[in-house]
Amino acid sequence: MKVDGRWRRTIELDASGTVIVLDQSRLPYDIEWLPLRTLDDAASAIRDMKIRGAPLIGATAAYGVAIALRDGATLEHACEVLARTRPTAINLRWALDEMRRRVVDYDPFAAAALIADEDVATCEAIGTHGLELIKRIDKPRVNVLTHCNAGWLATVDWGTALAPVYKAHEAGIDVHVWVDETRPRNQGLLTAWELKQHGVPHTVIADNAGGHLMQQRQVDLCIVGTDRTTKNGDVCNKIGTYLKALAAHDNAIPFYAAVPSSSIDFTVGEPHEIPIEERSGDEVRLIRGASVIAADTAVANPAFDVTPRRLMTGLITERGIADPAAASLAALFPERTR
Amino acid sequence: MKVDGRWRRTIELDASGTVIVLDQSRLPYDIEWLPLRTLDDAASAIRDMKIRGAPLIGATAAYGVAIALRDGATLEHACEVLARTRPTAINLRWALDEMRRRVVDYDPFAAAALIADEDVATCEAIGTHGLELIKRIDKPRVNVLTHCNAGWLATVDWGTALAPVYKAHEAGIDVHVWVDETRPRNQGLLTAWELKQHGVPHTVIADNAGGHLMQQRQVDLCIVGTDRTTKNGDVCNKIGTYLKALAAHDNAIPFYAAVPSSSIDFTVGEPHEIPIEERSGDEVRLIRGASVIAADTAVANPAFDVTPRRLMTGLITERGIADPAAASLAALFPERTR
Repeated sequence: MKVDGRWRRTIELDASGTVIVLDQSRLPYDIEWLPLRTLDDAASAIRDMKIRGAPLIGATAAYGVAIALRDGATLEHACEVLARTRPTAINLRWALDEMRRRVVDYDPFAAAALIADEDVATCEAIGTHGLELIKRIDKPRVNVLTHCNAGWLATVDWGTALAPVYKAHEAGIDVHVWVDETRPRNQGLLTAWELKQHGVPHTVIADNAGGHLMQQRQVDLCIVGTDRTTKNGDVCNKIGTYLKALAAHDNAIPFYAAVPSSSIDFTVGEPHEIPIEERSGDEVRLIRGASVIAADTAVANPAFDVTPRRLMTGLITERGIADPAAASLAALFPERTR
Repeated sequence: MKVDGRWRRTIELDASGTVIVLDQSRLPYDIEWLPLRTLDDAASAIRDMKIRGAPLIGATAAYGVAIALRDGATLEHACEVLARTRPTAINLRWALDEMRRRVVDYDPFAAAALIADEDVATCEAIGTHGLELIKRIDKPRVNVLTHCNAGWLATVDWGTALAPVYKAHEAGIDVHVWVDETRPRNQGLLTAWELKQHGVPHTVIADNAGGHLMQQRQVDLCIVGTDRTTKNGDVCNKIGTYLKALAAHDNAIPFYAAVPSSSIDFTVGEPHEIPIEERSGDEVRLIRGASVIAADTAVANPAFDVTPRRLMTGLITERGIADPAAASLAALFPERTR
């Protein structure tokens, strides 16, 4: 999507052929592009969340493999280093498996580029399917609530949860986004930033506010992303998603996850099988580097929760909208369940 | 409760007879006592949230009336100025009505002191009743989740939601508190501060985390405060309370509000009758004075939500635990429904 009016992707090759990524740890305050010259650069960009979002983690890992192979590392070593960076997002494992398979026939950089291009196509297809949900809402202005950032910054382009919003905006629909701040890492500010860059109306709210807005009928539709979805349709996503799904259910507001098939873990059936990353308490303690909570105060910081399938209205995949049920997902992706 | 090891109240008279309040806008970083010398001092302390918490707002307003009368203002003028400061907390109106009634027979400062003393007795009684709920939980460590600050800082002493926790701690029960950060104003840091001052184990979490902790059975009991409760038992409290009540309900975890009778509005039956204060977007934009969201980004900041009575397990009042139902509240407080 657009950055300062120019169409960009979150991961690109610069003129010299170096892989560069938009440094999301500096956004929304500074726009800086970070070169990934080595395997360690790629691994630390993922681990330290210079880049984030399950699909973009996958694409960055793919380029990480290509960089490592160019520098003479073994495929196994590269995959091992990259797999360790983040535990929850299944796309990471998916991308590494794809690279293992594809580098047999392809140049590693071509294989990584293919994964990135496929992500763009997947996200655009999610946008097209999700647009139909927005079109069905017969109101002068459609209010969509989203949590965290599952916009184009979380992918190579278009985004997952926000792809339908961008498609609606381009189709001339007056769509407005309620942007959850998404503590502790405030990824909502990334969502606000990218919506502003693209000209989509939006309002930032504290994570606490969404339930009240739903009670007041100020939300027509919720769309979130996912870091891993079980084969039955349980949605692991940024911590706090479950609370919004409960509120949507309580107020009969449709609640969808945008689920690229690379996020579906067909080996996992139940929520408790998904490992939940516990991140540093300093993410809660420090805001823009300033200490708001004393270092000797205990802090817990689980990064994800799982929304049970019974609370999901549907899953927007690149092949259409699935019911949150194993049969529905398997019917759309038969090749994954063979 | 204790501040630096010394027993204090949130509102006191100093040696010279000046009303002083603990400045909560400086906590947890600085411990400063703010003198209230004029009606305007009292009004701005409430409006600018130097003091906060429904019961303490009431007590401060009572002293505000006493100060105004001493300075020659009319009772009507004092009540009018103070009533305008905050719209949601019913205790404010309650305290002003009490002062109107009591200054007929009492010295205004004695009347205000009586309101403050009664608040202490009310909170301690809530603690005693709530202690029984904690005693019923047969686990080596009892995990209580609370939202916002309904501790002694929100009252004159003891607190409402935290009074049972303090009573349990004093009774030798190993009680640990999950402290919601409570964006946008981060009142959870006040809760962490007062629990630390008193030696009660606690862990701060992002508001998003509570649902996940409940799914993981890491919460045994939720207790929150209230700014206004309808006669039917719907609980208006800090924004985000509703989301936690939904999660507690979904996980069959008891969810109580600590409700001093001064917080019950017997004139209001349904949630939509309670005005919800919309506060400045800068509360979301600025953290410790640093701008985290651009000034030209739209922000919405509703300060309260209403948890419907169907999600409440019970209401802990100073006269015992009520069902969230009009009959139960009326039976406990017959003099209020006459």
